[in-house]
Amino acid sequence: MSEKISSKDNHLVKKMTKLMNSPKARAESGLFAAEGIRLCRDAVLSGAGIRCFFYTETAAVRHPAEKAEIEVAAENSFEISEEVCRKIADTQTPQGFFCMIEQGQMRLSDPLRKGCRYAALERIQDPSNLGTILRTAEALGVDGILLSADCCDIYSPKVVRGSMGAVFRLPFMICDDFTAYIRQCGQCGIQTYASTPRDAEDLQQCDFSNGGIMLIGNEGNGLCEETLNVCTHRVRIPMKGRAESLNASAAAAILMFQLMCG
Amino acid sequence: MSEKISSKDNHLVKKMTKLMNSPKARAESGLFAAEGIRLCRDAVLSGAGIRCFFYTETAAVRHPAEKAEIEVAAENSFEISEEVCRKIADTQTPQGFFCMIEQGQMRLSDPLRKGCRYAALERIQDPSNLGTILRTAEALGVDGILLSADCCDIYSPKVVRGSMGAVFRLPFMICDDFTAYIRQCGQCGIQTYASTPRDAEDLQQCDFSNGGIMLIGNEGNGLCEETLNVCTHRVRIPMKGRAESLNASAAAAILMFQLMCG
Repeated sequence: MSEKISSKDNHLVKKMTKLMNSPKARAESGLFAAEGIRLCRDAVLSGAGIRCFFYTETAAVRHPAEKAEIEVAAENSFEISEEVCRKIADTQTPQGFFCMIEQGQMRLSDPLRKGCRYAALERIQDPSNLGTILRTAEALGVDGILLSADCCDIYSPKVVRGSMGAVFRLPFMICDDFTAYIRQCGQCGIQTYASTPRDAEDLQQCDFSNGGIMLIGNEGNGLCEETLNVCTHRVRIPMKGRAESLNASAAAAILMFQLMCG
Repeated sequence: MSEKISSKDNHLVKKMTKLMNSPKARAESGLFAAEGIRLCRDAVLSGAGIRCFFYTETAAVRHPAEKAEIEVAAENSFEISEEVCRKIADTQTPQGFFCMIEQGQMRLSDPLRKGCRYAALERIQDPSNLGTILRTAEALGVDGILLSADCCDIYSPKVVRGSMGAVFRLPFMICDDFTAYIRQCGQCGIQTYASTPRDAEDLQQCDFSNGGIMLIGNEGNGLCEETLNVCTHRVRIPMKGRAESLNASAAAAILMFQLMCG
């Protein structure tokens, strides 16, 4: 029998709430929170270190097999009251399963490998965009993701959820000096493709047969000038419509598809 | 001087609130509501029929040029109180500009034209997906959009906003019998491409030089069997990652890009 937590003042409940809401708490602890049956199972299947598993009685009764499976993988398991569940939850209608998980299992190996295909994201700000980009990258078979340190937190609940668990499976790396890292990759013979509407080659004309890194910039401003200048190539998505830029996750889908299949 | 509305019980305020919240009210009246400076300006620039323009004093003071421009185009203009603004608004932090607009200005001409490129959406349920797909379609220069009658309402505030105004500029048509219409297009010599993971040609191998219609199905279930069976071609996005489907708007971005540029 696992211990039951009914108080919102329990220290683990407070810790989970912080992990849900505070990027700082996540960075300092090296932990993050996942919510929902599917994500908690994804954590188990990917071999992530699960410090704690929390479940409501209702959820346990409804999903006994999943509950048992997660319980076996988790270091500790706790039944929680509905009130505690609502306190922790980031969603409106929580399913009643939560995990406290160790970060950093899927680090991208450095240096990058020639011939592989990567996406690099500079200052993506919207967690929905980041989540969708990770999901798309995984589906298309991208080998790994580079993130500038000023992207939104990859471990935020919205990103984790929007990624459909890709955050557990897709190797990634957060670059403290993004521009310098991209420059260095170029110097080592890895092709680096800046996506930008100006002075660029049409995407479908590019040869991606040697692999490389596709760079995708901030939602409003694109890639910064310094980063643009260190890339070995510039590519653009041909736009025939109004001078309206694509949504970042739609642009990323097209760019990564061409990198993988073009 | 325009009339000032301070009461939430005013009949126009009630009507706008209904247009924001009720697909039925929109269908019965043939009107819809747009919120925000940019969308209200887009309505003006696209020549939409603007029945009423509502603005708060604060918004009018902050954006006098835009206010004047919309006022000239609108049949009637009304200053509204902050309380009325909050009542009408669909967003958390409204900008204080609203328009009541006539539907159906951008109808797609029937029959479709050979050599042109269209996207056809079957039962897309999420307004964010539909909005993003319209925005992407416009940016890529798609000639028009077909929607099955059971797609979410193209005039819902979330779709209008997510489309970045594409709903004012992109020709579209809602098909009462979607499958029959697609069959008929095929019989008339228009290529119809069903996107589906099963028994399909890889997207990048397809020849889209004669144009045609790219069909995109429901978020969870894809295209229905009947529609799949009437299409002249089946195409798939090659997925190398986990058997995890792409988000509908990411898939649509890739599919429409190949249709336009592939």
